[in-house]
Amino acid sequence: MSYAALLHVTGQINDLLNAASLLAWDARVMMPAPGAAARAHQIATLTVAARDALCGDATARALEGALREVDCTADTPEAAIVAQTQAAVAYHSRIPADLVQRRTALTVTAHEIWADASHANDFRIFQPALAEIVDLSREWADAAGYAEHPYDALLDMYEPGNTVASLTPLYAHLKDAIAPLARQVHGAAVPRHDFLHRDYPPAQQMQLAAGFAQTIGYDMGRGRLNLALHPFEISFGRDDVRLTTRVDRHDLAQGLFTTLHEAGHGIYEQGIDGAFGRTPLTTDLILLYAVGGVSFGAHESQARLWENQVGRSRQFWQHHFAALHDAFPEQLRDADADSFWRAVNRSAPGPVRTAADELTYDLHTMFRFEIEKQLIEGSLPVAEVRDAWNDAVQIHLGVAVPGDAQGVLQDVHWCTAQIGTFCNYTVGNVMAAQLFETAQAQSDVADGLNRADYAPLRGWLTDNVLRHGRRYDRETLLTWATGRGLDPAPYIEHLTSRFGAVYDLN
Amino acid sequence: MSYAALLHVTGQINDLLNAASLLAWDARVMMPAPGAAARAHQIATLTVAARDALCGDATARALEGALREVDCTADTPEAAIVAQTQAAVAYHSRIPADLVQRRTALTVTAHEIWADASHANDFRIFQPALAEIVDLSREWADAAGYAEHPYDALLDMYEPGNTVASLTPLYAHLKDAIAPLARQVHGAAVPRHDFLHRDYPPAQQMQLAAGFAQTIGYDMGRGRLNLALHPFEISFGRDDVRLTTRVDRHDLAQGLFTTLHEAGHGIYEQGIDGAFGRTPLTTDLILLYAVGGVSFGAHESQARLWENQVGRSRQFWQHHFAALHDAFPEQLRDADADSFWRAVNRSAPGPVRTAADELTYDLHTMFRFEIEKQLIEGSLPVAEVRDAWNDAVQIHLGVAVPGDAQGVLQDVHWCTAQIGTFCNYTVGNVMAAQLFETAQAQSDVADGLNRADYAPLRGWLTDNVLRHGRRYDRETLLTWATGRGLDPAPYIEHLTSRFGAVYDLN
Repeated sequence: MSYAALLHVTGQINDLLNAASLLAWDARVMMPAPGAAARAHQIATLTVAARDALCGDATARALEGALREVDCTADTPEAAIVAQTQAAVAYHSRIPADLVQRRTALTVTAHEIWADASHANDFRIFQPALAEIVDLSREWADAAGYAEHPYDALLDMYEPGNTVASLTPLYAHLKDAIAPLARQVHGAAVPRHDFLHRDYPPAQQMQLAAGFAQTIGYDMGRGRLNLALHPFEISFGRDDVRLTTRVDRHDLAQGLFTTLHEAGHGIYEQGIDGAFGRTPLTTDLILLYAVGGVSFGAHESQARLWENQVGRSRQFWQHHFAALHDAFPEQLRDADADSFWRAVNRSAPGPVRTAADELTYDLHTMFRFEIEKQLIEGSLPVAEVRDAWNDAVQIHLGVAVPGDAQGVLQDVHWCTAQIGTFCNYTVGNVMAAQLFETAQAQSDVADGLNRADYAPLRGWLTDNVLRHGRRYDRETLLTWATGRGLDPAPYIEHLTSRFGAVYDLN
Repeated sequence: MSYAALLHVTGQINDLLNAASLLAWDARVMMPAPGAAARAHQIATLTVAARDALCGDATARALEGALREVDCTADTPEAAIVAQTQAAVAYHSRIPADLVQRRTALTVTAHEIWADASHANDFRIFQPALAEIVDLSREWADAAGYAEHPYDALLDMYEPGNTVASLTPLYAHLKDAIAPLARQVHGAAVPRHDFLHRDYPPAQQMQLAAGFAQTIGYDMGRGRLNLALHPFEISFGRDDVRLTTRVDRHDLAQGLFTTLHEAGHGIYEQGIDGAFGRTPLTTDLILLYAVGGVSFGAHESQARLWENQVGRSRQFWQHHFAALHDAFPEQLRDADADSFWRAVNRSAPGPVRTAADELTYDLHTMFRFEIEKQLIEGSLPVAEVRDAWNDAVQIHLGVAVPGDAQGVLQDVHWCTAQIGTFCNYTVGNVMAAQLFETAQAQSDVADGLNRADYAPLRGWLTDNVLRHGRRYDRETLLTWATGRGLDPAPYIEHLTSRFGAVYDLN
């Protein structure tokens, strides 16, 4: 009965966290603005209730019994559920309750200050709040514990296995490959892209975007697609997985690729084994967030795989440009599959991460990783972050930062006390390429892609990644699927080959 | 500090119940159908968490201290908060946990069975489930306690003060007045209403309906209006109060009056004192439902007041018919303010409560009250409910029931274990007329209505009813506002005068 009791209490925790996610979705998609104050209380209460349930007597008693009942050395979902709950209870009991409360309170005020600072385009307004966030994050790292570097404790929250020691050589490797390639690309002739910026009615774009999401396998019957200012995917169980996107009347690519990206996240959640619903295998008990995927990086890998590996491939547009042209014959009168494919792969370095192309994207996360590491170890004073940021953008991207709003204040992460997760966009890119390389080597997957049938690729991903939910960690999944842990070689090869082709380099 | 601790824990309970309400809204307006199973778990978990928090040690300790700190004899919000929490804790500690669980489980299965039975148009499919619901309700009544009649315990949950002893003479009174009036009306010439059933494009209807909701004072900036199969109002705090409605392409009146009705509910929630947010003065701790209004009947009174007293008045359409005509000049080519007003007040007895007009509405709740009372006291066997129902419709409304789906199975209430609340539609009608009569006697209110300015009426209602939230009970509010408790005289006078005018009776 104790394992059953453990499922009961972790089921309730899953319910509370999924409810919190729905409240967050609604706040960003449906809620009238004045509802924000009450909503913040409601979300906080649900999260606290989940934490209290996790750290409560009922869970402790159930765990104790379950540890006697379940063979924890076996490779079973039951063993994973017990082990993960045990680890999460141990984790949260290391974090003092007052630290959790201070973190929650700080993120609320810091978010407001950040918004004000961003509006005023002035980092100095945000600087004291960032100093508090850095101090609190260091305190959190000390409480959570780490082997080598305090930043490791933060990295590990979002992506178990990420450490300074593992990410430093990864980034060095990427930098050595991307920097010279980018120089070559940015010296070459720029592909035409004028036709992307003609007048594309938003409603028609939304319809097309929804169609492409379904083409790659997102099940609209178990989800929905709405507009949001900052697009995201969120789920409340595998049978209710929602996407948001944005469309720009004068940028056809934005709506298409944002939607493919979010659909990739959604396909992950929809592909998780139904038997894992309401268990810790679809709940992040460390972050207290109801997510079914392994980690931030693994989740991102699925978004990037569909957005970039599939969605920006020449093959994809050879199959699908006709549909776009049918929808917008006037606007695309002088484009074809090839010119469209080149246009959506145009690389242009800029100061803003979310607007970055595939080639320059990792240059943005690279210096954020450095800055965060230095902030946490104390080698970079908060007062110097703006200068460090602006210098890094100049060095890595070769452009000047026009102002703090498009510089050090551009990301929402820090003000919500998320330090340690920018690197996961890169982990996602690398993992996507690694998985896609292996998948494509399967003849049925390759055959499928040749005839615009994405079911075999989805099937391979489901077998190797999706269905397992949070049962295994990233390195285990990667090793089973590709024979090795995270490896940047396929990603570098992909970037070299794609941009070589798009820009006709030799 | 104990009163502060009480506010803290009741604030969390309010958060949990508001979150449950949002999950319910989403389930009926946004959720993809396959999400229903997970959603049911999530809502149940939130409600159980609220009940556990209410009955937990922290609340008990906080209450104990608050009782020492707060002067409970004073007429203050603090005293009301303490008294209501104390009463709710006492109430829930009388209801065994297993009874709560059986009730929850039963409502889930009973709802499915009811839907099947309704689809098959056959009461016998639902009969065993109804028998269980009646047994369980009797058990609940015994646990909750009552002075005179077991049905009183159920009535009291939805509307404190409702008893068999108070409702029996109320209904007798109404029957004596409505039955002869209805005979007279139904013998008179039927007003023209053909123009209501022409082709009215739904999107345009929605726009108009939203406009009318705002005209009477619903603040769309703190809410939203969506379509739903079964319209309702729901709030997650006074700054996020949402309406749903339905429009029928061939029935202009439906969308208009459903929206005015729901807007009346919404205006109630939006008008509650902001200081009562997150307290028991905006949370029903007995029903474990986040509602800011006093009771089901009082809430209904505000909906009926705006829908019927204001919205179906001759004066209202003298002011507003022009706007309708501007929107639908072709469809309303041969109608005017007077003929429109008569058309939307046409009375036609039928078997279905939700389709009933103002004159015959209470005849529907009248026999439901009788049947429920007899079921709970055991004088009517469940096996005989269908016959009793069909006989009652024949006697009270003079029409035959065409089948169970439009007869004994038409309402969703019983299958969700709600026995004892049909009478509140009538309490709402009576209370609406009583409040409106007094309000109209204020010269500023009357002047306002004369120039289609609804702010003075809303101001009077806010002062007398809305702003108090759940601080006082219905009889207290009515006595302050009108000098007496619930009194059917103004309602009877209203019906007599309105239908006399619509049908030119003398």
